[in-house]
Parts: sequence; structure tokens; C-alpha cells
Amino acid sequence: MPASPIRKLVPYADYAKSKGIEVIHLNIGQPDIETPQQVLDTIQHYGDKVLAYGPSQGLLELRTKLGSYYAGFGIEVSAEDITITTGGSEALSMLMGSLCDSGDNVIIPEPFYANYNGFASSYAIEVRSVASSIEANFALPDVSLIESQIDEKTRAILICNPGNPTGYLYTDKELNALKELALKYNLFLIADEVYREFVYENQKHTSVLKLEDCDQHVVVVDSFSKRYSMCGARVGCIVSKNKELNEAVLKFAQARLCPPTLAQLACIAALNTSSSYFKAVNAEYDKRRRLLIELLSGIPKVKVAYPKGAFYCMIELEEIESADDFAQWLLESFSLNGQTVMLAPASGFYSHSELGKRQLRIAYVLESTRLEQAVDILRTGLEQYRNQNQA
Amino acid sequence: MPASPIRKLVPYADYAKSKGIEVIHLNIGQPDIETPQQVLDTIQHYGDKVLAYGPSQGLLELRTKLGSYYAGFGIEVSAEDITITTGGSEALSMLMGSLCDSGDNVIIPEPFYANYNGFASSYAIEVRSVASSIEANFALPDVSLIESQIDEKTRAILICNPGNPTGYLYTDKELNALKELALKYNLFLIADEVYREFVYENQKHTSVLKLEDCDQHVVVVDSFSKRYSMCGARVGCIVSKNKELNEAVLKFAQARLCPPTLAQLACIAALNTSSSYFKAVNAEYDKRRRLLIELLSGIPKVKVAYPKGAFYCMIELEEIESADDFAQWLLESFSLNGQTVMLAPASGFYSHSELGKRQLRIAYVLESTRLEQAVDILRTGLEQYRNQNQA
Repeated sequence: MPASPIRKLVPYADYAKSKGIEVIHLNIGQPDIETPQQVLDTIQHYGDKVLAYGPSQGLLELRTKLGSYYAGFGIEVSAEDITITTGGSEALSMLMGSLCDSGDNVIIPEPFYANYNGFASSYAIEVRSVASSIEANFALPDVSLIESQIDEKTRAILICNPGNPTGYLYTDKELNALKELALKYNLFLIADEVYREFVYENQKHTSVLKLEDCDQHVVVVDSFSKRYSMCGARVGCIVSKNKELNEAVLKFAQARLCPPTLAQLACIAALNTSSSYFKAVNAEYDKRRRLLIELLSGIPKVKVAYPKGAFYCMIELEEIESADDFAQWLLESFSLNGQTVMLAPASGFYSHSELGKRQLRIAYVLESTRLEQAVDILRTGLEQYRNQNQA
Repeated sequence: MPASPIRKLVPYADYAKSKGIEVIHLNIGQPDIETPQQVLDTIQHYGDKVLAYGPSQGLLELRTKLGSYYAGFGIEVSAEDITITTGGSEALSMLMGSLCDSGDNVIIPEPFYANYNGFASSYAIEVRSVASSIEANFALPDVSLIESQIDEKTRAILICNPGNPTGYLYTDKELNALKELALKYNLFLIADEVYREFVYENQKHTSVLKLEDCDQHVVVVDSFSKRYSMCGARVGCIVSKNKELNEAVLKFAQARLCPPTLAQLACIAALNTSSSYFKAVNAEYDKRRRLLIELLSGIPKVKVAYPKGAFYCMIELEEIESADDFAQWLLESFSLNGQTVMLAPASGFYSHSELGKRQLRIAYVLESTRLEQAVDILRTGLEQYRNQNQA
């Protein structure tokens, strides 16, 4: 596993800080939103005398409540269809291990969440990527391109919906096209839906679990991390009606004994979160999203993807050789009013890294005034960087 | 991954319970000992507003305090030498993934903790086992037997010290012999030392980190689970002075983002636990151990290994065809005063399962009166089972 372009920047961010420069972090998906109060209350009222193992599949109460949560989206799944995992990360890792032998492959539209590569490579699974484009806001690539990648070693198609890093929200038409491929070639369609609740402009998110006549072929990866701003809990889940898959997953779950008990109790409380919490959180993210798009669109020679979900926005810097170099330069050699900004170079989100070499991902996980400062830094920095490199 | 003999028994335990029979569980390593009060206090005083991601390597405060903890054993390691993991389970899994490519092998004295097999097989790593015997209390097999298993694909020798399932405590002589092999063949010597504190009869546990002139070849797997009776926290660690290994481990750590934050805070508090806690806990386990050995030794035709560490005791039932069948029969067809007992068939702890076919593991994780009841059930059940099968 090679180090990601984001991780390569960390020493430069440390260097900037050592010079007394404040670094605004738009490179990570750690929201500043407060965890719901009842989650914190539950932690503070923990009353057991022994912090004991739970079941490998996860606490039954949590799985049952999750069933009700999904029912709220018209998805019919029972506690038996759900395996609690240590974050969405473990869900992805267990799924890859359960579905694939070494040498098998999984098809993923790129750009994609960089750790998909990590989980795949740890099991010697090949990732076959199919490029989507910033001009199309990273819509699903032509299905024929995806189909052309399928061979006898293909076990699954993996999407992230809404997308990290793209913010793209798949349409029902796109999802159905993927479903047809999954049925035609007997593949699994895995949807990482951890940003399900973060959808804007009255758009509707469709879970693959709602697609018709394919319940043995669809799997959802989910997580409490972003939804309830409790990333440190490390609780996610795998949801599938496919018993054979669930049994394979359970073997992996048993080998690691159980997910964290305390965090699962916190998640049970999280599921009581009122819709007003999400409404407020969504309104806040939407405000940031609109502001960010507006501000970014005002910078010359910057292409801005229009995200409708999650909390990421991709941009492409025209007439720049390498966004990786520029992101490093911002930390190493630039500041504005004692501040600079850390962005995520997009090359790490591509298998074909040259496709993303001029792109950056911006996470709008900070409040509006910070976003304004960050975009100011980006605009001024970009101008200076271009002038220097042309001189 | 095949289902373990213990897991196969679960439906029979459920069946016994459905008939109103109380099942005494000596099959699992879930201690009944209370978690230290300051751990519970720390959880109840959690004050952050956002339950956020921590660093992939683990919280610096926890790693620094762990360094001091090891210093108490005369082991010099810094925070940089420690990677916090989601339980000892993840430590083992990450180590196997970091050290081996698919097709490589790891040598393990058998019987061994069954999940070693699970982690190895998930990465297509071959486990090469070398048998130890109950007659020798599961002392290290002759080193020449281990050496004969080494080939160019061998990456490590893995031991559990004190041993699960054996309770065996390796001598310094044995550890040094393994060290010599590791140096001679350029292997890693991995020691799973999660039961470090559970050592009886004034014996001394020696960590592989204390062996001389081999700091690039030794790795410790550790865990808070058993030591502080906080199995549900899911926090462990990997300790090594080998920077290349630590960097490989960090890649796996970064892919899964971070270990559970809340549980790590609890572990920081756990490291303040006074030595009087361990003294009391050890005295309690030692009392149980002595009682168990005494009671088991009184049962005819039962061989009892003499454990000096951990909280497990292995027995062998003479003139019995299959301990798996007997363990199932205890749950399915037997009770004494409305109770029966669930034991762990040892076949699952062997690669060569026939070696363990008459053996069972007993976890002395329950108080003395329960142990007495359990051994009563075992003795009476065994007598009846033998009579039936001879009839």
C-alpha cells in the first residue's frame, strides 16, 4: 500500500504550524458538528460493572433498532440481515474478504475513496476502475465501459452514494443499470451509503436495498460516523438479505470477537435522534455547500463540480501541472494573514492518478467564516503560484 | 474458514437453556472480574462535544502511558514503537497482513488460539503447526521440530505466552531458543502476551521484548481486554522496535482510520490501575486455578495439564472417542440438579485436530462455587457417558 497524497502532506502541515501559521483543514471528513446530546448522555450513564464482549454480529438491540431505522426509508431488513462492524472501514474490509479470493476483482467508478484500494490490496484483490468526469459532475460512467471491465474474476461493483470524494448522488436510472449488470453477470452490487442523510436540494437518495428483484445481489455498507458526527465510535454495519454472504461475513466477525461494546450502546442512543437534528445539520451543510460553490466559482480557471450529497466538493485547477505540488506549496511556502489551507489532492482517489492530477477535494466540514477564509487563501495562493511558475 | 467446535455447540447450549437447564459457561474467556472503577468513572465523565476520529496509530497519551507501563517490566519502548489496535484481534490480523504475502507461512506450536487460523486464512497465509503435548504441560516442542518446518516462505514464529488454551508459561531457555531460530533464519518472533499479568506460583513472565540482541526480530501483541477485564473496549496494541514493520502496520492502521476513541480514553485510565487490583485479581484466579486442578485431578481417567499462567486449563478424557461429542452430549442430553456445563472442545485449537480429539479447555473465569458445580457436572456426566457408551 503506497502512502496517499494526503498523508504525504502531513509533514508540510506540521512545518507550517511550526512557523506559527494556522492551517485550516479542509482535507479530512471530520465534521465539526456536535454529536447528538443523548449519545453523550448514554456514555455518561454507562452503568455496567464489567465492560464485556458482545456478540460477534453486534448487539441485538442495536441490530433491531437499525432494522426500524431502515424501515423509515421503506427498506425491509431484519436484525438477522445486519452485521455490526468496527466502522464502515471494517465493513468494507470484511466484505472484500468475504466476496473475493486473491486475484478476484471489484469494479469501482473512479475517483473513489482511497481506502477502498487499501482494503482490496490487503486481500490481493484487483480494483478495476472506470473513470467518471468532473465535467459531468462525476455521474456514473457509461455502463458499457463498466461492462467491458467484467470478466470471470469479477465479484462485485462498488459505488459510494452519495459519493466521497465526488459528492455525486446516483439517479435511480443509474442504480437500475448497475443492478441489471449485477444480475446479468451474477455479481454483487455494493453501495457505501454512509452519507445517506446528506442530500440537498430536495433530492432523494435511493438505497440499493430498495431496488427491486435483486435482494440476493445488493449489499449496503453503512456507518454511524458521519450521520451522527461520532466518527470516533467506530461503528458501522453490513446489510444484506443474502444469507450465504452474511454467513461468510460472520466468520470474519467471529475471528475478531466483537465490535466495541460501549460505542454500540452509544449508537443505540444515536438511533433515537430526532429528525430535527438532521434537519438542522443538513441545513448547515447545505448553507456551507452553497457558499463554497459560489465562492469557488468566482475563482478564475477553476472548474467546480456541483455536489448534491455528502460534504465534499471536487475542483480542477486549470493551467496547473500538479495539484499535489500546489497543495504542498500552500503549506510549505504560502500564508495569508497568518493562515493557510490543507486540501486533499485528488490523485489519491484515482487508480489512474494522472486523471486527477489537477484536482483537489474540499471537505466543507467547517463553518462558513472558515470556509470564506479558506477560499480566500486558495484564490490568492493560486494566483501567486501561477505567477511564480510562469515567471 | 470452518466453524469452530465451540461455535458448533452454541445451538446445543441454546437448546439446553430452552429446556430450563442452567448452562455454566467455562467455554469462553470472558472474566467475571469487575472492570477497575476509574475506567468506569472515566467513561461516565466523558466531556467532549464531538466524538471525533483519533490518530491512526492511536492516541499519543495512551501510547506514551503504555511506554511507561512497559518500562515497569524493564522493557524500553517509546510511544513511536506502539500501534494501538482494535483489540488484540486486529493486532494479530494487521501483523499477519504486514509480515506475509499470500502463500507465506507462520509457524505456531499447537494447540493454539483458534482465531490465529482465521486471521492467517483471510490473507491466504499457511499456518504450520508443531505439536506440544499435554504430558509435558504443553511446553515448547523440541526446537529441531520447529526448525524442520522453516522454509523460504516462513516469515514468523508465533507463540502465546502465557498460553491460551494451554496456560503454559514459556521459560527463558525456550524463549532464547526461539530467538536463535528467528535470528538464524531472519524471521519475526511474535509473542501474544495478553495474559502477561496472569502468572502464578511466583513464576516470572518474560516478554520477548526483553530478549537481548534481537530487537528487530521480536513483536508483541497485547490487549487491555483480559488485563483490566474490559474485553468490550476492543483495544490492544502491537509493540516493536522494527521501524519497517511499524510502517507497514501503519498502512493497515490508516486504511481503517483509527481505533475506538472512547475506549482508548478508558484505557488511559486503566493504566492508572494500582498494583493492589492485580494482586487481588491474581489471588482470585490462583484460588480458582488451584481448586480446579485439585477437583479435576480427582476425576478418574482424566489427564490434567498443570497451567502456570492465563486462566485456562486443558484436560484429556481417556477412553472417550470424541471430546466434541461429549461436550455436545453434556448440553443436549445431560443435567445435574438443573444445571449443565459448556466446555471448549480442544480439536479447534489444533491444526491436526485428531491430536486434540479427547481434549477440552476449561476457562476458570467463574467463582469457586460455580467451578465446584461445574466439575461435579463434568465428573457425573463423564461417568454416565462412559457407562452408556460401554453398554
